[in-house]
Amino acid sequence: MPQLPSDKPFGRILLTGAGGNLGHQLRSALADWAGVVRISDIVPLSEAAPHEEVRLVDLSSREEVLQLVEGANAIVHLGGISVDAPFDDLVEANIRGTYNLYEAARKHGVKRIVFASSNHVTGFHPVTSVLDADAPQRPDSLYGVTKCFGESLSRYYYDRFQIETVCLRIGSSFEEPKNPRMLVTFLSYRDFIELVRCSLFTSRVGHAIVYGASDNATKWWDNSKAGFLGFRPRDSSVKFADRFPAIPVDTDCADPAQLFQGGAFVLGEPMYIDEQ
Amino acid sequence: MPQLPSDKPFGRILLTGAGGNLGHQLRSALADWAGVVRISDIVPLSEAAPHEEVRLVDLSSREEVLQLVEGANAIVHLGGISVDAPFDDLVEANIRGTYNLYEAARKHGVKRIVFASSNHVTGFHPVTSVLDADAPQRPDSLYGVTKCFGESLSRYYYDRFQIETVCLRIGSSFEEPKNPRMLVTFLSYRDFIELVRCSLFTSRVGHAIVYGASDNATKWWDNSKAGFLGFRPRDSSVKFADRFPAIPVDTDCADPAQLFQGGAFVLGEPMYIDEQ
Amino acid sequence: MPQLPSDKPFGRILLTGAGGNLGHQLRSALADWAGVVRISDIVPLSEAAPHEEVRLVDLSSREEVLQLVEGANAIVHLGGISVDAPFDDLVEANIRGTYNLYEAARKHGVKRIVFASSNHVTGFHPVTSVLDADAPQRPDSLYGVTKCFGESLSRYYYDRFQIETVCLRIGSSFEEPKNPRMLVTFLSYRDFIELVRCSLFTSRVGHAIVYGASDNATKWWDNSKAGFLGFRPRDSSVKFADRFPAIPVDTDCADPAQLFQGGAFVLGEPMYIDEQ
Amino acid sequence: MPQLPSDKPFGRILLTGAGGNLGHQLRSALADWAGVVRISDIVPLSEAAPHEEVRLVDLSSREEVLQLVEGANAIVHLGGISVDAPFDDLVEANIRGTYNLYEAARKHGVKRIVFASSNHVTGFHPVTSVLDADAPQRPDSLYGVTKCFGESLSRYYYDRFQIETVCLRIGSSFEEPKNPRMLVTFLSYRDFIELVRCSLFTSRVGHAIVYGASDNATKWWDNSKAGFLGFRPRDSSVKFADRFPAIPVDTDCADPAQLFQGGAFVLGEPMYIDEQ
Amino acid sequence: MPQLPSDKPFGRILLTGAGGNLGHQLRSALADWAGVVRISDIVPLSEAAPHEEVRLVDLSSREEVLQLVEGANAIVHLGGISVDAPFDDLVEANIRGTYNLYEAARKHGVKRIVFASSNHVTGFHPVTSVLDADAPQRPDSLYGVTKCFGESLSRYYYDRFQIETVCLRIGSSFEEPKNPRMLVTFLSYRDFIELVRCSLFTSRVGHAIVYGASDNATKWWDNSKAGFLGFRPRDSSVKFADRFPAIPVDTDCADPAQLFQGGAFVLGEPMYIDEQ
Amino acid sequence: MPQLPSDKPFGRILLTGAGGNLGHQLRSALADWAGVVRISDIVPLSEAAPHEEVRLVDLSSREEVLQLVEGANAIVHLGGISVDAPFDDLVEANIRGTYNLYEAARKHGVKRIVFASSNHVTGFHPVTSVLDADAPQRPDSLYGVTKCFGESLSRYYYDRFQIETVCLRIGSSFEEPKNPRMLVTFLSYRDFIELVRCSLFTSRVGHAIVYGASDNATKWWDNSKAGFLGFRPRDSSVKFADRFPAIPVDTDCADPAQLFQGGAFVLGEPMYIDEQ
Repeated sequence: MPQLPSDKPFGRILLTGAGGNLGHQLRSALADWAGVVRISDIVPLSEAAPHEEVRLVDLSSREEVLQLVEGANAIVHLGGISVDAPFDDLVEANIRGTYNLYEAARKHGVKRIVFASSNHVTGFHPVTSVLDADAPQRPDSLYGVTKCFGESLSRYYYDRFQIETVCLRIGSSFEEPKNPRMLVTFLSYRDFIELVRCSLFTSRVGHAIVYGASDNATKWWDNSKAGFLGFRPRDSSVKFADRFPAIPVDTDCADPAQLFQGGAFVLGEPMYIDEQ
Repeated sequence: MPQLPSDKPFGRILLTGAGGNLGHQLRSALADWAGVVRISDIVPLSEAAPHEEVRLVDLSSREEVLQLVEGANAIVHLGGISVDAPFDDLVEANIRGTYNLYEAARKHGVKRIVFASSNHVTGFHPVTSVLDADAPQRPDSLYGVTKCFGESLSRYYYDRFQIETVCLRIGSSFEEPKNPRMLVTFLSYRDFIELVRCSLFTSRVGHAIVYGASDNATKWWDNSKAGFLGFRPRDSSVKFADRFPAIPVDTDCADPAQLFQGGAFVLGEPMYIDEQ
Repeated sequence: MPQLPSDKPFGRILLTGAGGNLGHQLRSALADWAGVVRISDIVPLSEAAPHEEVRLVDLSSREEVLQLVEGANAIVHLGGISVDAPFDDLVEANIRGTYNLYEAARKHGVKRIVFASSNHVTGFHPVTSVLDADAPQRPDSLYGVTKCFGESLSRYYYDRFQIETVCLRIGSSFEEPKNPRMLVTFLSYRDFIELVRCSLFTSRVGHAIVYGASDNATKWWDNSKAGFLGFRPRDSSVKFADRFPAIPVDTDCADPAQLFQGGAFVLGEPMYIDEQ
Repeated sequence: MPQLPSDKPFGRILLTGAGGNLGHQLRSALADWAGVVRISDIVPLSEAAPHEEVRLVDLSSREEVLQLVEGANAIVHLGGISVDAPFDDLVEANIRGTYNLYEAARKHGVKRIVFASSNHVTGFHPVTSVLDADAPQRPDSLYGVTKCFGESLSRYYYDRFQIETVCLRIGSSFEEPKNPRMLVTFLSYRDFIELVRCSLFTSRVGHAIVYGASDNATKWWDNSKAGFLGFRPRDSSVKFADRFPAIPVDTDCADPAQLFQGGAFVLGEPMYIDEQ
Repeated sequence: MPQLPSDKPFGRILLTGAGGNLGHQLRSALADWAGVVRISDIVPLSEAAPHEEVRLVDLSSREEVLQLVEGANAIVHLGGISVDAPFDDLVEANIRGTYNLYEAARKHGVKRIVFASSNHVTGFHPVTSVLDADAPQRPDSLYGVTKCFGESLSRYYYDRFQIETVCLRIGSSFEEPKNPRMLVTFLSYRDFIELVRCSLFTSRVGHAIVYGASDNATKWWDNSKAGFLGFRPRDSSVKFADRFPAIPVDTDCADPAQLFQGGAFVLGEPMYIDEQ
Repeated sequence: MPQLPSDKPFGRILLTGAGGNLGHQLRSALADWAGVVRISDIVPLSEAAPHEEVRLVDLSSREEVLQLVEGANAIVHLGGISVDAPFDDLVEANIRGTYNLYEAARKHGVKRIVFASSNHVTGFHPVTSVLDADAPQRPDSLYGVTKCFGESLSRYYYDRFQIETVCLRIGSSFEEPKNPRMLVTFLSYRDFIELVRCSLFTSRVGHAIVYGASDNATKWWDNSKAGFLGFRPRDSSVKFADRFPAIPVDTDCADPAQLFQGGAFVLGEPMYIDEQ
């Protein structure tokens, strides 16, 4: 293992799911926060920089995860499946995988995890509601259900073992909004990175729930109960509003994807692997 | 009827109460949103522009209203009486008139109405409270009671017939504040128009309640539960603050008009027409 | 006018709607509480007992109501239309009629009114909710909307003129339940009379909202916020449960009358008189 | 398959986990409610009565569950693991098993499931709190986490597919309380059966959460928000109170099993199968 | 000191204010709960029974209180002034006295105190409200303010030193109700003793707030959030209702003593000793 | 006494505790708001300006305070002890002193007091909570308990005598933040003065509670319920953030001063004067 330099706030941060869209964004930012950045994914990652450790890991493997976590001071857990998928796949990646990660954290004494939950844990709330951290879960998909599991599990590890977690209910984090719904759910990369920074650097977070959205005009989520994280988005989807001109209201009102915050996710159907 | 051009979001918007203060402000803005703007009032309106249809209508007439609404895709209902008045007049204008409008909307398939409710539906809350959409109604006048009726009626048409309504609890929308109370309740014309725009263009609004106030320093109303409308005021009464210097607190504390949000409305008395 | 004997708590109580089902029940009970019981209806009533004054009154007539109220110390207002009806009829009976009554009360100094509101002011809440006095109104019919009006109006008369009102959101008050829904909404005559007694005899009631139901097993309504009224039902629909055997759950789930507390009311449609 | 007689409310009810403590209690009660009672467990069950169908089923097997559910009109799902256990076992029994059950219900058109959740989904709330259906989940064990999963999953199947579920957060259902904690959490067999009856026979339940406890003196749970189920416990732990004399308060206060509602569950530790 | 027999749940319980009305009631009950009952007052008490220790103590004396508390396992603190009084007297008895008691408890390791707070900490709530443990304090007198102090102080000692307190907001505990208000606030002696018993014998109470009232018909207070104490009143003021016949509502409405829960307390005025 | 000039909003404002840190800041600001500024402290103050009256006063002296308050139109009460201290000292300065001040205000007809409460009335809430005016008090020290007393007392004087108070729960008001905690609790001098200005100049405040913090990134307190005061901070601790670099999360988690909002205050211990 490379030596841990002393001039960064964290000795070693582990980033799972580093090969995905958001993992890619975060990879470089982590270099400023930790002497060593360990990154992992189930798919091969690009070559390690001098301060990086690259691991190819299947999160459903207890032994691999146990090794992966060793030596980390904090974890940003983006790994797993981030779209709807057959249940058996979700079980391995999001349920067993998340359990393996928390067990490894417990065994290695990691005290802080930033967990990529999802707005889809509340996606069956109507688009005419504004939710905060106390709104009941209403998952909009099996995927959302597995994210509820991650939130429950992390709550347990906090109450039982004092491992702190910030659950990020991420909206839509892309270069720019791709459809009208994303004008509401948009989280710019810059704001996403800031949200992770707040989650790692706030001295105590307990078990926190925060929605990840930029300062968009339309708001479905109210983060005021997470004010102790100090997260202030600096971007907004407003500048992209012209791309998605408003649709007359007399279009079909019965489309569930227009009625619920989860959008098209609410139309998915559970499936077994061989039913894909 | 004029043809409906295809390059505006709405084919035809109906504006009632177009001859009033706020109707006048909205009339020109609507031209950008709808191919045809139908405007009506019980008093004669100025000449129609090419994109306009002008109607002289008594809202208490079922037949007139039925004709008025035909062909509209959305309605901004400012019509009726907007100050305290004899009960019989209020019944005709604000109770029967609003009922006629919603019945006509139902019969003609209109799916969205922006209803000018009023801050006076909650005017008997003290000035030391901050209200949101869940605060109980406390009408401060018979006028306020009839606006409560409009809110109840529109709730019914939403639950029963899925006709969406945004109830605008408008503060004081004038060129500028006219008294100290209006420093709190001021809604600039620009912000009023923006509020109507959000109410018409948000794809789903359900049955929404939102207070209409600019971004004034003092706040009696908290719109965070209506965040899904995307309304962000851009003006403020702050620039007018100097006109109404603060009054020493040891002046008479027992004046109800100083104690309740409704101001002088709370001093009115119900009356029959012949008691005016 | 007969003399007011001094040995009853109230000198004179006025009961409107005395010819209806509940009025009939209450008529005899009132004899214990008031020296003079004035009863009125729009239809002829049976002959007056010695302690009674019988009046034939149209509530939509301002003058008739003004005379009716003169001399009363308290009012139990059951009058008006208690089922869905054409809007114009509801306006006269439930809107103008209630206004006339409150205006008359104000002019004659009456300080307490027991107002027969209805569970139909919240009938569009689902049958899987439990409501209390703070639940938002969700009227299930035009009839329900006019009862919302009565609640708003009485709130105004309390805030403005300190006339106290208890709004009774009566469930189904009959000899016995007539259908499965009434197992939940049943209010025995004895409990109804007790509820009116509490509403009249509690020394201060402010503007109170209380649901009228017996101590049935299934509960849609929670009266704990009205505990200051001291109302304790003594009857229950349990003894009638056998008449309405449970229906297998796999029957049609889409019937709105099964989904909402208002039952069949939610299927009604607004109408004008000539559309009956 | 045996014929479905027409004189019982349900044609066929499926009971999973029939071999357990509570399953045993329920087995005979079901005979009154359904023409055919299909019972299953992963361990052999006693011989079928004439109205019964006995199945040996592993809930983690998709095919077995699919067959098990066919023809059922309603399901009482007690199956799975009801104590803390290695994670992999819990995944198969409580996560995959519950998923298989709901998927089978969806495919076979079952519209009502009574799900044995547990008070351990909220076991990390202190014993000095009173919880209702809106209290946030605080699982006290991995077992509790998997019950949270079941609640989330059933919520999803309700929002997405209108399959109704009553989640029974069962306390301690035994012949009699076995320790001081059970004086609070005790649910008599008779009350348990009544709770299941209410859950099956209430015409609409949506997605309901109800705690299963008898009418014990000490209350940690408030079921008033589930009043629409009509559940009224008839038993109480009071008669057993003498067996567990009060302990002086100056005994050790730092024992977590005394501080949290979950009791000894909060002391468990997650484990893999080979760590048992 | 007498030996502590081992057959009572508590070794030694200290009762302050033993000479007052409620202290007198409790004195005999304590004999069943503790081997030694130490009783104190600022006025001489009747002769000690064999199991009793009698002390004459001024609570405002730090040294006397320190000695008084030594050896106690739990404290029932009824001492101090229980009516309105000059501020300086209240400071000594209720502020300095309560502080001395908690400091002595801390120094001697006492872990449980039952503190006689009062309904007068919320006496400025209107009689048309129902309060629970979360209702904001609204003291109705200087006396009430000093009871607020006791609640704040005990909260601090719980958060800081884990000394548990049950704050009893006692209503009117007498042989029988003495006026109409007491029909609502009545706490029978038997129920008072039961409330103290629950407060002492519940294994964990944290910092609890509970109103002390019997099961009277009219309810201003809702103890459901204190359900973990297991307190169930068995008496009711109903049997005394005839003594206080209802007063017609048209009597003077402006009497504050009729408007607020505190009754005549709200009419008191702060005073210095020499102003009595 | 100097004459009261007529061109300032207030004739005479009294400032207690003028010799302290915040008193010093406020002294000059008051010159703009009042014709005469009377300042007092228990320690000598610098020489009076022409518009000032300087008084040396011990707040625990009833007579001195009575004289001090005479002629004032409003009071800003910063006097008393603002750190933890022996109980007897706190009693004199913060309990008796505050009582003397309110009694004097009542006798001299002062109708508005701005009371320096403290964030330490809620300091035992965890740093992972966001509090508003309705959060329960959790004092973190005896000092905090005496500030709770001040809030209770002022509530009483409002309900009983209509003397209005704004309770300022001041965070950390210094030239700049001195430690990491103060990045959250920082209140710039400029914002402090603005907060006092709003508290004095809002025409009606009732009994208001507002936290005093600048617009810092991290927020423990939510002032939206005090929006009627019109307070908008203009400063932020963000510019000082670099001085307190984030600490890795794996440092000791068990330090109470890191866990609770009160910081080091939660570690203090009550003491008598001779125990200092």
